[in-house]
Amino acid sequence: MATLKEVGERALIQHMRPIFRSRSDRTLVGPGDDAAVIGGLSDGKIVATTDAVSVERHKTARMSWERFGWTAAAVNFSDLAAMGARPVGLLSSMCMPDGMEEGDLLDIASGMDQCCEFCETEVVGGDTKPGPGIVTATALGSLEGRAPMVRSGARPGDIVAVTGRLGSAAAGFLASEKGMDEYEDSIFSFMVPVPRWEEGIKLSASGAVSSCMDLSDGLGNACRTICERSHVGMDIEWEFLPVGEEVEEICGLCRRDLKETVVRWGGDYELLFTFDKAKIQNLYDSGLAFSIIGVVTNESSPHLCDGDQRSEMQDGLY
Amino acid sequence: MATLKEVGERALIQHMRPIFRSRSDRTLVGPGDDAAVIGGLSDGKIVATTDAVSVERHKTARMSWERFGWTAAAVNFSDLAAMGARPVGLLSSMCMPDGMEEGDLLDIASGMDQCCEFCETEVVGGDTKPGPGIVTATALGSLEGRAPMVRSGARPGDIVAVTGRLGSAAAGFLASEKGMDEYEDSIFSFMVPVPRWEEGIKLSASGAVSSCMDLSDGLGNACRTICERSHVGMDIEWEFLPVGEEVEEICGLCRRDLKETVVRWGGDYELLFTFDKAKIQNLYDSGLAFSIIGVVTNESSPHLCDGDQRSEMQDGLY
Repeated sequence: MATLKEVGERALIQHMRPIFRSRSDRTLVGPGDDAAVIGGLSDGKIVATTDAVSVERHKTARMSWERFGWTAAAVNFSDLAAMGARPVGLLSSMCMPDGMEEGDLLDIASGMDQCCEFCETEVVGGDTKPGPGIVTATALGSLEGRAPMVRSGARPGDIVAVTGRLGSAAAGFLASEKGMDEYEDSIFSFMVPVPRWEEGIKLSASGAVSSCMDLSDGLGNACRTICERSHVGMDIEWEFLPVGEEVEEICGLCRRDLKETVVRWGGDYELLFTFDKAKIQNLYDSGLAFSIIGVVTNESSPHLCDGDQRSEMQDGLY
Repeated sequence: MATLKEVGERALIQHMRPIFRSRSDRTLVGPGDDAAVIGGLSDGKIVATTDAVSVERHKTARMSWERFGWTAAAVNFSDLAAMGARPVGLLSSMCMPDGMEEGDLLDIASGMDQCCEFCETEVVGGDTKPGPGIVTATALGSLEGRAPMVRSGARPGDIVAVTGRLGSAAAGFLASEKGMDEYEDSIFSFMVPVPRWEEGIKLSASGAVSSCMDLSDGLGNACRTICERSHVGMDIEWEFLPVGEEVEEICGLCRRDLKETVVRWGGDYELLFTFDKAKIQNLYDSGLAFSIIGVVTNESSPHLCDGDQRSEMQDGLY
C-alpha cells in the first residue's frame, strides 16, 4: 500500500471521507468546508476541549493504529463526560510522518470513528498534514440545559465517589509490556479507554454533584486538583477503593507497589466526583453505578487513609 | 531561563494563565477545567475548525515565537471568517520539545492571545505536553443567525471577488529569505497573517454571497475547490487581480514568475467569494472593500484569462 507522501493529502482526505460516517442531523456543515457547523444547541451553550496524543508517548508497540485512533478521540470525550456534556462532534488534526502507510492512517481514522459511534456522534471536520506523529482532537458537547460540572465546587461534608474500577489501565499496561496476554481484561482497559459520557450525563442530570473530573492522570492527581480548585481537603479510604479485578495479581507478578499503581498511575478514564450527601437518593435514582471512596474535609489537600495510617495523597506519576 | 522540562507542564500552565486574558462574558467556564463552556449562542449553532502549524514547516528562522503563535491562531480564525462566523473562543494544544525555553513557549502563548484580542475573543482552554513542535488550535465561532457561507453554493453567472491584495505573503516570504528587509510591508504580510473575520461577517450579513473560502492555500487552490464543490467553472481575469504593491518588484529581483507567485502560492489569508450580481448593492452597502476578479461559468474548472490567453488555473504549489 502507498505511503502518505505517495498518496498526497488531498487523496488521503478523500479516502478518509467514507470512514467518517454521518450519524446526526445536528451536523449542518460537515467535513470538506472551511469549518464545521453544528446546530441544536438549545441552551445556547457549547462545551469544548482539546487534547493531543503522540505516537511516541501513547502508542505502545503492541497497540494497533485503530486503538491509537480510538484513544485520541476517547481522551477528549472523557473530558466532556467530566463536564456532563453530550458529545455533538469531533474535529481531528493528524500530523503524521510522510513515510507512514496510508492503510495505517485510515486505521487511525477508523478508530476515531468507532469511538465517535460509541459516543453517538461523528467526526465533523479536521486537518491532515505531514508531521512528526501527533493526533490532536477537539470534542464538542452540549449540556442540554444542565449545569456544567466543574472542578471548583466541592464543599466540606460532600461525599467523594468514582465510577468503575481503578488501576486496571495501569495493570493492563504492565501486563501488555511483559507479554502476560492472559490478563486480557486489564490489557483491554489499557488499550481501549472508555469515555464515561452516559455516566457524566446522569451525574450532571442528578443535580447532586458538586464537582467532577476524569481520572486520566490518576486518582491522586484528580483528588489534588479538585482540592486545589475547591479549596478543600479529602479523606480517601484505601479500603473503599474499587480496585480492578486483576490489578493486585499483576502488581504482585510485576513487583509493583499496589497502592502506587492504583493511586498514582493514570489511564483509567473513570470519573471522580463529589456530591451533596443530602441528595444521594438522586444518584441512586439515576441508575448510575458508583463507589463511595471518601469525604471532603475542610483541610487543603487530599489524604489517603489506610487503617491507622493517614498520609498526604501523592500526585500522578505520569 | 528554564526549559519546559525543568519547569514542568503544571507550572508552565500556571505561568500561561495570566497571558490568556479574559475578554468576554460568553466564556462561562474558561481554562483550568476538563473543558471550556461558551454561552450566548443565540441561534443554537456553533462553527468549529481545527488546524495545526509545525515549527518545521511554518516557522522560518527569522520569525519570532510570538508571530508563530499568532499564526497558529490566525489560520483558524481565517477559516471561521470564510464561514461568516464571529470568533467566540480558541483552544490550543501545544506539543513542543522538552528542551525549549519557557520564555519562548510563553511568547507563543502571547502571540495567540494577541491574535485573539484582534478577533475580540480569548483562549478558553487547551493542553500542553512535550512533543516534536506542533501547535494545533481550534477556533469556535457564532453565526448569530446568519447563514454559513459554504464552498458549494456558487452558480453560473455569479461574480467572483476577493478581499485585500494578493501575492504579498509569498513575496514577503521571498524577501525575508533573501534578507531584503526594506520590503517590510510584504514581510509583515507573510509574518502576520490577518484573519478577515470582520469582512467575513459583513459578507455573510449581506445576503449576497453564494460561496466563500479563504486563500490560505493560494488563489488557484481556492478557485479549484469552489469549482469542484459547486460543480461550476470560473473565468478569472489576470488583469483584474489586486496584486500587492511590492510583489512584482520582489518577483523580479528574485527571478520568480509573477503569475505563479500570485496564483499558486498560499499564505494571503484573504477571502475568495462568489455573489449574485443582482445583489451587488448589498455588498456596497456593507462598506466592505473588495475586488471583482472574474465570473462563475457553467464549465467544471477555473481558467485564468490574460488577453487572448485562457488556460486552466493551476492548483496551489504548497
